[in-house]
Amino acid sequence: MKTRKIFLSEKEIPRQWYNVQADLPTPLEPMLHPGTGQPVGPDDLAPLFPMPLIAQEVSQERFIDIPDEVLEKYLMWRPTPLYRAYGLEKALETPAKIYFKNEGVSPAGSHKPNTAIAQAYYNKISGIKRITTETGAGQWGSALAFSCALFGLKCKVYMVKISYNQKPYRRMMMETWGANCVASPSSETKAGQSILDQNPDSPGSLGMAISEAIEAAVSDETGETRYSLGSVLNHVLMHQTVIGLECQKQMEIAGDYPDVPFVRDKINGKDIDIIAVEPTSCPTMTKGPFAYDFGDSVQMAPLAPMHTLGHTFVPAPIHAGGLRYHGMAPIVSQLVLDEIVKPISISQMETFKAGITFAQNEGFISAPETTHAVAIAIREAVKAKEEGKEKVILFNWSGHGLVDMAAYEAYLSGKLKDHALPEAEIQRALKDIEPLPKPKQYKAGAFS
Amino acid sequence: MKTRKIFLSEKEIPRQWYNVQADLPTPLEPMLHPGTGQPVGPDDLAPLFPMPLIAQEVSQERFIDIPDEVLEKYLMWRPTPLYRAYGLEKALETPAKIYFKNEGVSPAGSHKPNTAIAQAYYNKISGIKRITTETGAGQWGSALAFSCALFGLKCKVYMVKISYNQKPYRRMMMETWGANCVASPSSETKAGQSILDQNPDSPGSLGMAISEAIEAAVSDETGETRYSLGSVLNHVLMHQTVIGLECQKQMEIAGDYPDVPFVRDKINGKDIDIIAVEPTSCPTMTKGPFAYDFGDSVQMAPLAPMHTLGHTFVPAPIHAGGLRYHGMAPIVSQLVLDEIVKPISISQMETFKAGITFAQNEGFISAPETTHAVAIAIREAVKAKEEGKEKVILFNWSGHGLVDMAAYEAYLSGKLKDHALPEAEIQRALKDIEPLPKPKQYKAGAFS
Repeated sequence: MKTRKIFLSEKEIPRQWYNVQADLPTPLEPMLHPGTGQPVGPDDLAPLFPMPLIAQEVSQERFIDIPDEVLEKYLMWRPTPLYRAYGLEKALETPAKIYFKNEGVSPAGSHKPNTAIAQAYYNKISGIKRITTETGAGQWGSALAFSCALFGLKCKVYMVKISYNQKPYRRMMMETWGANCVASPSSETKAGQSILDQNPDSPGSLGMAISEAIEAAVSDETGETRYSLGSVLNHVLMHQTVIGLECQKQMEIAGDYPDVPFVRDKINGKDIDIIAVEPTSCPTMTKGPFAYDFGDSVQMAPLAPMHTLGHTFVPAPIHAGGLRYHGMAPIVSQLVLDEIVKPISISQMETFKAGITFAQNEGFISAPETTHAVAIAIREAVKAKEEGKEKVILFNWSGHGLVDMAAYEAYLSGKLKDHALPEAEIQRALKDIEPLPKPKQYKAGAFS
Repeated sequence: MKTRKIFLSEKEIPRQWYNVQADLPTPLEPMLHPGTGQPVGPDDLAPLFPMPLIAQEVSQERFIDIPDEVLEKYLMWRPTPLYRAYGLEKALETPAKIYFKNEGVSPAGSHKPNTAIAQAYYNKISGIKRITTETGAGQWGSALAFSCALFGLKCKVYMVKISYNQKPYRRMMMETWGANCVASPSSETKAGQSILDQNPDSPGSLGMAISEAIEAAVSDETGETRYSLGSVLNHVLMHQTVIGLECQKQMEIAGDYPDVPFVRDKINGKDIDIIAVEPTSCPTMTKGPFAYDFGDSVQMAPLAPMHTLGHTFVPAPIHAGGLRYHGMAPIVSQLVLDEIVKPISISQMETFKAGITFAQNEGFISAPETTHAVAIAIREAVKAKEEGKEKVILFNWSGHGLVDMAAYEAYLSGKLKDHALPEAEIQRALKDIEPLPKPKQYKAGAFS
């Protein structure tokens, strides 16, 4: 029988995260203070994050030790299996070898706990008792709720209202792990109240929910509350490198090297394609300029140097709620700018078609966000067939969609349609950021 | 770091199922034909099942080879990890070592695909094009839908109406895998129509859904449709022994031997407790006599020798829909009768409390059915603490509850209550089976 999954033993789990900042061809520029416009220092960030995470945010060390207490929790589901997608290959009749890393085996069902566990741990050892955060579709909120339960921390989640109503199971998961979850905008914060005053029917957005979570953290007078973010920031991305580091070992065991990733190897000259996929409804990398922009709607969060559609951009209500954010992580933005990572946008209909093909041939039902990677893997495999090439494709299967089934139902019943490209909304929202400072690495060509 | 999970390599997957029929202290008695009352032979069952499965149903061979094509599909998620529940042990402050087998990693999220894959395979090689089945909470229906997708078979699922309405995500999972799922009783079958004629608002039951699925299979004039069942039958239970066989190897690696299971070792004289858990609302083993009874509501299915509450018994609407069946598998019933397996019933409230404890300390959210095993493991661990014994506890964590979150919400919001013991309903339903033939091994003491 052909080997289908490659496991690592618990002893082979990576003991260090990889910090790509040490290898970036162009160093990142600093975040700016939302009030003064000046580079933020550790003291500015201290009300938001515990010191160990602030240190990681700006660290230039190539490898950073994973604490034993974090490793111990990682072992609840890590190392995760690397799969060879024989079923999908056969269905596509492709000569390509397709591998996927199955991050859906975590209790929360996605890759998000890789950083949630680390963040909960660093907050815990810094004496913090309570963490606030925002969540879109709920993958991040449930990962943090799970992690806080393990470390005995309180957890408060502001969930984008439209997702809160569409995906009630996600909220229930958070509550099962002991967290408190409210729909955002809420009347619990000044930021939420001001948004509701303007529009009582606001469906919410990640930018608004971030404003609420930040306010709830900094306004706690006990000083025992901090804020947590599940993407964008450097330390968050660094914690996720445990996936790629495991994959490198597993691909070595498989005896294959992927043409599609790894970042560090590409920086070091390896000739590979690294593709970042985004929805056409929220095309930050492919349509947004590289500029300084606020991380949230009401301009409480620092300005980050990133590809952005403008912090007031409102994406169409696609089911991949986790991808409905106006900006892109500075590290990814910089890698796109330096042409290490190639961005591609893809329509919702193509992603769900890919999700069905994957489910019927590999069994697992993908989260709407995850179907974006599946769809591009399928595109690449079909291209390999047309070109007659034995390509090696590796993608991160970031999570299952078992609590997103309403999205599949909408697709299967013909109710799902592609949204028009958001050209007008992009033009409107971009006007808001035109006066913002341009990062030094700004390149005119990045506006496309 | 302490080892948390024990994996087997793909090469170590069991190549044979274990057939406990070869070792039963008391041989099983035959099923009886629902029309004639005579023992059923292969020809009687041929309209329902393909011949290889009928042969397995009555086989006395101790080990039966697992076909390569089935093993190949098993490798999509098997071997499954054996977990040491350090988090739960710590929370309970117990000296007991608690292990659980994580069957929730399958694409369908439970142990059910172990037999669904095998059944789909044997139907496929027998020239069958379409399979019908029933499902309660939907774990079985989704497992069969997934398996049929892999083998290119059509799949029709009759889902108990109350669950169909309460657990829409399960139906959507089946549809994503290409199956067709309708609420039972339906107007698509004569059985369903006659039930609806009597009571248009019938919430359905497993017994009714079985009647519909059998009728749909035998009435297909092309002869290309067969029926499939996810529990009760001997071949179904045999396919599930892949779990225990993996566990034996894994417990050996762990260096521990469980005081709680394995059946074969107990038959061979080993001094261990084997506990079978059931809901107090559907107490087949603890309150039902051992008698011949019909497998379905409208008396189309064969009579099986089993602990039963009567085929017209209607259990309270507990969330563990998969445990709402009036009978118990003949093999389990016989093992209970022979005192190899000890039955215990447990209330819904205790099971959900256990589910929360498990989720907050081990991360994974259990299916309502699975919480029954969790609750008894916790009881045993607490008892070990009281007795100061270093007991070894092993249980099968049969599946996750991510599409059963509404049940957790009901519990957390205080809306869940225990149902009164169904004494009156048992007395009523038992009257229906009093005139039925008693199996030879009938013991008066089994009525408790």
